[in-house]
Amino acid sequence: MFLRNAWYAGAWGHEVEGDKLLPRKLLGDAVVFYRKSDGSAAVLRDRCSHRFAPLSIGRKEGDCVRCMYHGLVFDADGVCVEEPGKSRPSPNLDIRAYPVVERWKLIWVWMGDPALADPDLVPDCHFQDDPAWASIPAYIHYDADYRLILDNLMDFSHLTFVHENTLGGSATIAATRPKIEQTDGGVRITRWYPGEPEIAPYLRGVETFQGPIDRWNIYELQIAGNVFLMDSGSAPAGTGAPEGVRVPQAMQFRATQIVTPEDEHHSHFFWTYAHNFDISNADLTRKLAARLTTGFQEDKDMIEAQQKVIDEYGEDGMGYIFADNGLALFRRLLRARIDAEQGQAPKLAAAG
Amino acid sequence: MFLRNAWYAGAWGHEVEGDKLLPRKLLGDAVVFYRKSDGSAAVLRDRCSHRFAPLSIGRKEGDCVRCMYHGLVFDADGVCVEEPGKSRPSPNLDIRAYPVVERWKLIWVWMGDPALADPDLVPDCHFQDDPAWASIPAYIHYDADYRLILDNLMDFSHLTFVHENTLGGSATIAATRPKIEQTDGGVRITRWYPGEPEIAPYLRGVETFQGPIDRWNIYELQIAGNVFLMDSGSAPAGTGAPEGVRVPQAMQFRATQIVTPEDEHHSHFFWTYAHNFDISNADLTRKLAARLTTGFQEDKDMIEAQQKVIDEYGEDGMGYIFADNGLALFRRLLRARIDAEQGQAPKLAAAG
Amino acid sequence: MFLRNAWYAGAWGHEVEGDKLLPRKLLGDAVVFYRKSDGSAAVLRDRCSHRFAPLSIGRKEGDCVRCMYHGLVFDADGVCVEEPGKSRPSPNLDIRAYPVVERWKLIWVWMGDPALADPDLVPDCHFQDDPAWASIPAYIHYDADYRLILDNLMDFSHLTFVHENTLGGSATIAATRPKIEQTDGGVRITRWYPGEPEIAPYLRGVETFQGPIDRWNIYELQIAGNVFLMDSGSAPAGTGAPEGVRVPQAMQFRATQIVTPEDEHHSHFFWTYAHNFDISNADLTRKLAARLTTGFQEDKDMIEAQQKVIDEYGEDGMGYIFADNGLALFRRLLRARIDAEQGQAPKLAAAG
Repeated sequence: MFLRNAWYAGAWGHEVEGDKLLPRKLLGDAVVFYRKSDGSAAVLRDRCSHRFAPLSIGRKEGDCVRCMYHGLVFDADGVCVEEPGKSRPSPNLDIRAYPVVERWKLIWVWMGDPALADPDLVPDCHFQDDPAWASIPAYIHYDADYRLILDNLMDFSHLTFVHENTLGGSATIAATRPKIEQTDGGVRITRWYPGEPEIAPYLRGVETFQGPIDRWNIYELQIAGNVFLMDSGSAPAGTGAPEGVRVPQAMQFRATQIVTPEDEHHSHFFWTYAHNFDISNADLTRKLAARLTTGFQEDKDMIEAQQKVIDEYGEDGMGYIFADNGLALFRRLLRARIDAEQGQAPKLAAAG
Repeated sequence: MFLRNAWYAGAWGHEVEGDKLLPRKLLGDAVVFYRKSDGSAAVLRDRCSHRFAPLSIGRKEGDCVRCMYHGLVFDADGVCVEEPGKSRPSPNLDIRAYPVVERWKLIWVWMGDPALADPDLVPDCHFQDDPAWASIPAYIHYDADYRLILDNLMDFSHLTFVHENTLGGSATIAATRPKIEQTDGGVRITRWYPGEPEIAPYLRGVETFQGPIDRWNIYELQIAGNVFLMDSGSAPAGTGAPEGVRVPQAMQFRATQIVTPEDEHHSHFFWTYAHNFDISNADLTRKLAARLTTGFQEDKDMIEAQQKVIDEYGEDGMGYIFADNGLALFRRLLRARIDAEQGQAPKLAAAG
Repeated sequence: MFLRNAWYAGAWGHEVEGDKLLPRKLLGDAVVFYRKSDGSAAVLRDRCSHRFAPLSIGRKEGDCVRCMYHGLVFDADGVCVEEPGKSRPSPNLDIRAYPVVERWKLIWVWMGDPALADPDLVPDCHFQDDPAWASIPAYIHYDADYRLILDNLMDFSHLTFVHENTLGGSATIAATRPKIEQTDGGVRITRWYPGEPEIAPYLRGVETFQGPIDRWNIYELQIAGNVFLMDSGSAPAGTGAPEGVRVPQAMQFRATQIVTPEDEHHSHFFWTYAHNFDISNADLTRKLAARLTTGFQEDKDMIEAQQKVIDEYGEDGMGYIFADNGLALFRRLLRARIDAEQGQAPKLAAAG
């Protein structure tokens, strides 16, 4: 079950270059990405309407894609504009085109009713495309239901255990009860760890200061599109970070993590982890990205192992613990949004 | 769904040599091929009647096969002739034997009611075993429903696109409306491309003449056994090829392409492409076979990609185009033959 | 279908060392093996009660296991003893612990009702842990239903065919009608091959005597736990072996073969083949083990091939032969035991 009326991150812009036809599955739909002559992105259903050959093994021709089985040509709106041997194509050969917006280095695809595809609804991920911050676009493929990945993000107590030697490095994290708030679009979670004696392991050797640390993770999950945006960082203890003061030595991050379902059992994970210190130091940016990748691989290993257990034994009977309040709120809101959308579906169809 | 009362190409004769037990699945039945002492081919169900071990990992003994699990021996008629420790085998241990004819380098197997297995019904594929023509027996395994492969053969408009740089090389092919005829056994298709400026790419460097070309593809699909037989070629333009004159410089081919279902989702493809020019030049025959193999691999890539889409999304809603009349006729005739056979089945059973 | 109220061999003791958490599936249950501080073995369900992460990718801490996702800790009885951030764990977080006994180098696990787990019921496999006998613990994984492996053991006529060049080497074996007896716990089979001219192939070059041989296989299958125990050997012909005299030159073996279902389609096979001659010669013990491994691989190849046929075509219609009486008795007794156990289940549940 997916929320369909939302902008989903479908690809990094740099994945679709030149005459490339990029196949990808989003929310169970096989689609193909390409760029028109003016450089703008287009997304079509990756299936010729004739005999169902994938268009992604076809050929880009101008603003169109030609199926290289029997030669039908489709424009970026999905209209069949050429059928070999006929002056006008036969009827009923058009295919589905998806609304597209390219913003913040990502190509966003609207997977639901096109009439509702308002570009103003694209989530604000500007930190990954902001000259005051440095980051590297990254991607991880998951053999897991998207909700398990979001569960993971909704409960940072796991940093103490999963990321003991990378992103965590402190028992305080698991012992901290976060502030959980429902927002208009999802869930906001605020976590402070004041006066920690040690820097997080992934920051060792790149510290901008010595001594005790105020650490924090403040993040919001937007349920439409599964967009997780985080303000996190480490500041010299007692310099006012919790009250909003961010002294120059503070190592600040703005993370963007987006989970786009591939299908019910697999997911795309797009992420950046922008830092605001020493941003012209590309080696530093690469080093941090490599360490974060190691940490994110730890999540992937755990979540995919969890998914295998669920695949085999189901998920009935999961226990509830102290740390689950964020996760539970997220699951409840997601369920309500999907139910609401599916309840509307008949009305939308009747209106359309 | 398969038509069962037909001779199907099961193996090239050269695949079954010496004491080899060749396992293969035909129309969903696991069978084993071997040769008796007199060199004639035999085909048995590849399953011991006792505990269902495959006979193909057993041992050929004279005209028989011994299961190497508990030692039962079966003759070429499927009769159990030995049970270790007993003077006469226990009852009800016989297995199914299939009627077999070896002809035109192929071992043909009758997959339906043995009482109907008339050797005179074996399709005439003599061109692949004719001293006036040169060819090399070839085989391709397909991860695809046999009908998708036959669809491909029924619509040569795909030569323009799938085989742009090999078997096609001309936009004329896709633009040509062929003559489609129903025959006693299937469908005949006639395609002429007169006065083409360029030779087909796979013939470059081996031309027997220069200048404009009359090209043709005249072929018939016999639905019993899925046997496709083609007269194709390239003659100097205006020398009367369409009227039946084949001047000595004409490069003529007689292609045999046979699709035997392995099961509902996989197929065996046996083919030759006999040529009548420079036939004592083995290098030429090998070069042409290699280029044709490249072309047939292009079909395999496309059809298997199409099959994957169908596996995931079904085949409801396929569009109909100008070029589909041959394909549609074939599908209708096949359906009718299968329905007729299955409608007869109760009567046959009652009579048998 | 499995008999659950039985001790099953779950692992060799040497497989669980130090801080290792060994995951394994037994009778369809995913479990994790580890050792407590006192060295004794513990077996828990390999699934955290919280979000179903496998405990086997967690961490051993003293006598406990910590889930390394969100940090819950379980003791060897399955009790949740720690939930991070809480002074006492939330309710309903305990997991299943399995009764365990380590004996004869194996860790035995009781897969049914714990109230019935009597250590005195552990089968007597002392020969694999007896200083008068030499053997090497071995393991084979099978892609096959455990019953097909037991079928194989119940009919040694297969030695003539499957093990023609290893464990068999004589047509007499298949021709011999064994004595079959029902015992309290299963089936006993007695096979004598007196005056054989040749030693079994796997004993060539290690013979303790020359000349004709009395060979035998006397074995019992205990249905609870699928434990097969065999007295086999080769003695100089006419020295009284059938009457119970075992002269010093006799090469005697005590084989232990245990089949523990992994799930309905896969099995664990634990085995030793203890010999009583030249027992301080470790090279001899290794050489024999290597040759026996070759022989057991022949069984695996045959049984897995048989399983594939059954997977595809079912097992209806298997024939019955002379040699099947042991197998048939075993299957009947197993079926009766399982039916009886499942018939009791409601009563047990009501009483519990």
